[in-house]
Amino acid sequence: MIRQQHDFTDLEVGFDVPARPGMDAADIQTPALVLDLNALERNIAKMGAYARAHGMRHRVHGKMHKSVDVAKLQQKLGGAVGVCCQKVSEAEVFARGGIRDLLVSNQVRDPLKLKRLARLPMLGAEVTVCVDDVANVAELSAAAQAAGTELGVLVEIDCGAGRCGVTSASAVVEIAQAVIEAAGLRFCGLQAYQGAMQHHIRYEDRKAKADVAIAMVKETLAALRAEAISCAVVSGGGTGSYPFESTSGVYNELQCGSYAFMDADYGRILQEDGARIDRGEWENALFLLTQVMSHVQPDKAICDAGLKVQSLDSGLPDVFGREDVTYTACSDEHGELADPGGTLKPGDKLRLVPGHCDPTVNLHDWYVGVRNGKVECLWPVSARGKAF
Amino acid sequence: MIRQQHDFTDLEVGFDVPARPGMDAADIQTPALVLDLNALERNIAKMGAYARAHGMRHRVHGKMHKSVDVAKLQQKLGGAVGVCCQKVSEAEVFARGGIRDLLVSNQVRDPLKLKRLARLPMLGAEVTVCVDDVANVAELSAAAQAAGTELGVLVEIDCGAGRCGVTSASAVVEIAQAVIEAAGLRFCGLQAYQGAMQHHIRYEDRKAKADVAIAMVKETLAALRAEAISCAVVSGGGTGSYPFESTSGVYNELQCGSYAFMDADYGRILQEDGARIDRGEWENALFLLTQVMSHVQPDKAICDAGLKVQSLDSGLPDVFGREDVTYTACSDEHGELADPGGTLKPGDKLRLVPGHCDPTVNLHDWYVGVRNGKVECLWPVSARGKAF
Repeated sequence: MIRQQHDFTDLEVGFDVPARPGMDAADIQTPALVLDLNALERNIAKMGAYARAHGMRHRVHGKMHKSVDVAKLQQKLGGAVGVCCQKVSEAEVFARGGIRDLLVSNQVRDPLKLKRLARLPMLGAEVTVCVDDVANVAELSAAAQAAGTELGVLVEIDCGAGRCGVTSASAVVEIAQAVIEAAGLRFCGLQAYQGAMQHHIRYEDRKAKADVAIAMVKETLAALRAEAISCAVVSGGGTGSYPFESTSGVYNELQCGSYAFMDADYGRILQEDGARIDRGEWENALFLLTQVMSHVQPDKAICDAGLKVQSLDSGLPDVFGREDVTYTACSDEHGELADPGGTLKPGDKLRLVPGHCDPTVNLHDWYVGVRNGKVECLWPVSARGKAF
Repeated sequence: MIRQQHDFTDLEVGFDVPARPGMDAADIQTPALVLDLNALERNIAKMGAYARAHGMRHRVHGKMHKSVDVAKLQQKLGGAVGVCCQKVSEAEVFARGGIRDLLVSNQVRDPLKLKRLARLPMLGAEVTVCVDDVANVAELSAAAQAAGTELGVLVEIDCGAGRCGVTSASAVVEIAQAVIEAAGLRFCGLQAYQGAMQHHIRYEDRKAKADVAIAMVKETLAALRAEAISCAVVSGGGTGSYPFESTSGVYNELQCGSYAFMDADYGRILQEDGARIDRGEWENALFLLTQVMSHVQPDKAICDAGLKVQSLDSGLPDVFGREDVTYTACSDEHGELADPGGTLKPGDKLRLVPGHCDPTVNLHDWYVGVRNGKVECLWPVSARGKAF
């Protein structure tokens, strides 16, 4: 009897998962991340075709989705050569998930993290890391030698974002030479990603920033050539800038992430023809499903998607496909919806387009994959919370 | 050989956990949530003594910490009577973790969530839920009857926050009468939590808002008495307002959460004597440990704590115990530190006080409990991500 009393297995969902494959999409427990699988597949195939047509390798940014399943779809449908990620713990997840070519597009300085990084090739992955300080070269070399592995190195240049990365061609040469002389390391090329320009609304503004980055890369390549240092990889480019890197003549690898899912903030940036990029270039494939839970005031509904299921760093979410209601504010567990026509009622479900996909995804354990009104798959957000 | 190659077990940390009990606190992998166990225990004991001295029950808010371990410490050291939480999935975690008295301080409208809620008493918990719509009473009653359980009900009043909750005493009476007549439900009293007032800086401003809430509760209690409806529980009060509810003569249950951890935003509010509440009233017990990973520019350091390990809804974090450096900006995985004296170097670790504890905690899988420079415990953030 006790056993029967504690038996929750006849429930379709709850506690651990918001949905199960085969159920109606209408029954998904909210709030939940929903992927429109048709839109996702079209985005991935389209970027794959673009990269191929422009002779670019595409190393998809796994920091965006943190999902082994999505990464493998990007390899299969989009021809992606591998994954870049920002943290050693993310790389551990992708390596264990069977991704063979990994770039940690970030600096690694902690002694234990260096040890973990250097062991990643034991899982069958080829691993590359970024460096912006010559003192880091000896640390990486010691870790690789201790593990009996080899690590690829990209020298990161600060091409306008003012964050990590060296600021002169001579510093790149100095680090590249140190890498070439260091046991256990292999100099691969340059990391030249300009994150700050990606979200400028106007195409011309993004192009101007990209031109600066491209000029820095050219100057750096000339300095390396002058020292007879060959540079196999120049990696960079995001969803807001990939056309510039792809036609630069110097970059040969893209690192786009958000194109696959889209979000409200990226959606607002404009293409060369002046249209929003989410109207023609990339489709919204990621949604935050929410439900109305209270509607005491006639023109204001309260839904169950607040701060804890989305990041507000890039603004509030859009309500997808609805002109009559607007998401206006939120607190930890509640969202406020202006509902001037009073059309919503408790229980109604809405699809929100999150302001910023990367940190929103990182709040969830599951992607609910939907096609034709049915739940087709449940994918773990494999590297969720892997920040160390 | 293969087995040996894949053996990562001699590493102290990584992949799954940022630290292990017994290790030096200096070796914790960053970014990580760190609890100062001495400060935490003092905060919990202090609030417990306060509630006892004022004849108040304390139902601690589990939405803040999402931790079974912390909740049990609050019961043991602080005399807490139980836990409130905001989501059915949170309640499922606390019930499975052995918490016996649970309030879902929120509305539940979804059919599957109603079913899950009504089954919670099967796990040994007494369960109460909030209602602000008379139509919800029949839904809850049907769910409780189907499960063969009983649910307690608090009628939620909107006492100034303008979110959920009814706005008139007559609506409370209507819902209370419906609950009393409904099979499977038990009318317990009022939910009267005013979230919007908690963070006003000035003591007088918070008091003015609390006075409004208290007046509404008094009016509602009079209306219930006029109908001979007894009201056992009046629950509400947070870290910014508990002195007002505790001396109101009408509230008998507090719902404080943040007092146990503190955060930068709450820390700025002022006590009656004009001092910040984190200078005397409550200690900072929660920290986000971060590490410097890049320092190319002389006056600016880059650390590894960005958007994905903290919520920025209530502002940037404070750097604990350091007047010389300031956290000035962040992106997904990076934080920028103004370091005008150039005192930081790669590898240096800093304790940040997060802007807002609740949504920051919800980003992490683990609390690293520290005492006297050693890691004493590793507690899961048990209900992390439980939003549905």
